[in-house]
Amino acid sequence: MADQKLPTRAEDFSEWYNQLVTRAELADYAPVRGCMIVRPYGWALWENITAQLDRRFKATGHVNAAFPMLIPRSFIDKEKSHVAGFSPELAVVTHGGGEELEEPLVIRPTSETIIGWAYSKWIQSYRDLPVLINQWNSVVRWELRTKLFLRTLEFFWQEGHTAHATQEEAEAETRQMLDTYTDFAMKEAAVPVIPGKKSDAERFAGADRTYSIEAMMGDGKALQAGTSHNLGQNFAKAFEIKYLDKTGVQEFCWTTSWGLSTRFVGAIIMVHGDDQGLIFPPRLAPFQLVIVPIYKTDEEKASVMECARRLRAELVDADIRVKLDEREGSSPGFKFNDWEMRGVPLRMELGPKDVAKNSVVLARRDRPGKEGKTFVDQHGIAGAVSALLVEIQQALFDRALAFRKANTHEPADYAEFKQAVEKGFAFSWWCGNADCEANIKEETKATMRCIPLEQPGGSGKCIHCGQPATEKAIFAKAY
Amino acid sequence: MADQKLPTRAEDFSEWYNQLVTRAELADYAPVRGCMIVRPYGWALWENITAQLDRRFKATGHVNAAFPMLIPRSFIDKEKSHVAGFSPELAVVTHGGGEELEEPLVIRPTSETIIGWAYSKWIQSYRDLPVLINQWNSVVRWELRTKLFLRTLEFFWQEGHTAHATQEEAEAETRQMLDTYTDFAMKEAAVPVIPGKKSDAERFAGADRTYSIEAMMGDGKALQAGTSHNLGQNFAKAFEIKYLDKTGVQEFCWTTSWGLSTRFVGAIIMVHGDDQGLIFPPRLAPFQLVIVPIYKTDEEKASVMECARRLRAELVDADIRVKLDEREGSSPGFKFNDWEMRGVPLRMELGPKDVAKNSVVLARRDRPGKEGKTFVDQHGIAGAVSALLVEIQQALFDRALAFRKANTHEPADYAEFKQAVEKGFAFSWWCGNADCEANIKEETKATMRCIPLEQPGGSGKCIHCGQPATEKAIFAKAY
Repeated sequence: MADQKLPTRAEDFSEWYNQLVTRAELADYAPVRGCMIVRPYGWALWENITAQLDRRFKATGHVNAAFPMLIPRSFIDKEKSHVAGFSPELAVVTHGGGEELEEPLVIRPTSETIIGWAYSKWIQSYRDLPVLINQWNSVVRWELRTKLFLRTLEFFWQEGHTAHATQEEAEAETRQMLDTYTDFAMKEAAVPVIPGKKSDAERFAGADRTYSIEAMMGDGKALQAGTSHNLGQNFAKAFEIKYLDKTGVQEFCWTTSWGLSTRFVGAIIMVHGDDQGLIFPPRLAPFQLVIVPIYKTDEEKASVMECARRLRAELVDADIRVKLDEREGSSPGFKFNDWEMRGVPLRMELGPKDVAKNSVVLARRDRPGKEGKTFVDQHGIAGAVSALLVEIQQALFDRALAFRKANTHEPADYAEFKQAVEKGFAFSWWCGNADCEANIKEETKATMRCIPLEQPGGSGKCIHCGQPATEKAIFAKAY
Repeated sequence: MADQKLPTRAEDFSEWYNQLVTRAELADYAPVRGCMIVRPYGWALWENITAQLDRRFKATGHVNAAFPMLIPRSFIDKEKSHVAGFSPELAVVTHGGGEELEEPLVIRPTSETIIGWAYSKWIQSYRDLPVLINQWNSVVRWELRTKLFLRTLEFFWQEGHTAHATQEEAEAETRQMLDTYTDFAMKEAAVPVIPGKKSDAERFAGADRTYSIEAMMGDGKALQAGTSHNLGQNFAKAFEIKYLDKTGVQEFCWTTSWGLSTRFVGAIIMVHGDDQGLIFPPRLAPFQLVIVPIYKTDEEKASVMECARRLRAELVDADIRVKLDEREGSSPGFKFNDWEMRGVPLRMELGPKDVAKNSVVLARRDRPGKEGKTFVDQHGIAGAVSALLVEIQQALFDRALAFRKANTHEPADYAEFKQAVEKGFAFSWWCGNADCEANIKEETKATMRCIPLEQPGGSGKCIHCGQPATEKAIFAKAY
């Protein structure tokens, strides 16, 4: 697979992405249009993502559960905006066990409705609150234009669903999970995201308020990488999720939901990858280091492999995820290219001379050529590797942040705005009017990504209509 | 929930089970008939099961992946026995995105077909073998008679799918995974299972050979708790999974599949539970120890809670899963009963006198009353708790094994056989004839559970027809 060159990102970013995903064996196309097979290398990345998120969810008091994938069709109709948003995307089961069903079922496009139904049974009193549940599952939305990881009919995600006694608590939860996603993206994925609020037009179907984290991809486009919704009392009213408060009065609950999906894999690919292929952030990489043994004679092979296995054991003991490439019949050069394409952050080259000198060559994936190579003593190898992995993680973050800054503009007028969204983000005053938003979208294909939580303060004039504006928003073309 | 008594197991084992599952909040009924909601307490148990299995799968070289839930209807038809076995149980998606589909899709009842399709693309040469993939997912089978965990329309499981160059390797893999399930059941779940071979009648639809682990429940009935299938070349031929061998000749692969599901939760409940409720084996218990603080005055509460939190921290540091029951308004007695019902293996009682004496009371769930209580010094509490948990784990296993032995008979004739399967297992010579098997089933409702791998040797006469027999089999009524 590594013998044929990828298109460069400048030539064709979309094709670079598509080829990379399949050639690096992250995912493959399924027999059903728009569905995806996540292959072991891609799933190992997703498992590392899930572990880091799950740890954060549990640390903030959430527990996991599992709700069924099949939902009565009528459930979707119970919340007005929800049905409008999801009806066109449903997969419908009409037959089961050889018979036509009395009521058609849908495969969950998201689980607010069935979880709302369950919460209405489980929650009786203020003592039962808050309910803080998450689930790891897959959902189905009948998308027309699909792309591996970014938009697939079935995708994998987590969906958190919580119920609270007060509006304030629900808003605090919504914001806490947005912060959790931000922290995860920054620290684990080295993806500098912008947390902010969505416009009414981009809100989740059934939410009072939607927050998201937005990231800039390598082509300057935006990708929504996680969302957190304050659902107000909309689902509580639709599904009668009520509780008796301390004074014995019955009240509706306030609920939230929040999700992050396999889309995030696409973000990692498009934020960090280069023309040679993937670059995985060390903290999430399936393999953090690959050992490529170099030898010609059987005698050399014996001593090199013995040394390689010893070093692998030492690194594994230090909880470093190591791959020793023992493939026969492939040259070291082939293996270098192959693992570069697959994004392993650090490569160890080990030949007879290195064995003799008790040293190894470590080559950084993020710095091609000689600049990224160092000779390291075998003694204390785990410490040296760990330190380099930390450096690489930081360097990837710094580079992505610098790229985003270089491609984010604060246009002085609408003409500059149009230029800015051709190649990156525009950060502009916006009046908050849905008409302006719609016009901008029609005229430039850029959408309002979010109103960042971090605001400069003060006020200005809307970039489109010139009316007074108190908030600045990110506009960009998006995936 | 704990104020109402469960039916005893002797009164109504089935009702004891049903009430216990919902009252202990392991699972609940979904709005769609036969589907199940696994609640956080039940899912925490399942997460512990998955972690212990996943560790074993990875240690034997397997990797995880994710295949889509939607499969073209025509795939199911490609393997003759498979279609016969699964057609009556399919859930069929006929509409997507508001339109009728050209070809109906089914929700996977199991994934041999779609994985076979993928393997035929991925596998070219002997260098690509073996392929050792597992996935954690849920599947849908349209069952008519359902029971929480034991038989549900949608259930959660793992399904391993491997491809090999030779028949011998495939058989070795099939047996290895059977051994893995046995090891897991014995060591983690304290469930003494019997590994063995299924009869042709009970084989998986599309397999050459099916192995299973069988466990005896608290009512003497059998439960199949995991299966491992040698699929021969059946799916390889149906899906053209071929490879070029070292000499350049194209050959069909040999494949296997193996699975263990949320059914296993049912096994744990029915093997270990008693009339007070659940008893979880310490190695899988969501909470291994619950701390129940006892106090009357505010002053007592302050000192007891301070001590309880300190002990909790110490236990958590030692990787013990601890719940501190801080509920206000519930008496210690209520909490004792509640956690007994929920199966926590060890209870710590902590009152003002204990705080003063620097000791605690530890009460074992598996030994009711005074016999199971010990006073333990707070100093070194983690060591004492760990040791007790190991003891409880062993005691549960020993008790379950003794129960199985006491209820397994080797009947001398068919009359005794009929009595034996009324209350347990019959271990009998069987000629291997499908007619005998069918007659036994019709006459006694007992099925051939498995031919245990461990055989006495020698030969005897078939318990039903009296013809010569070389193998002994387990017969029992089963879930």
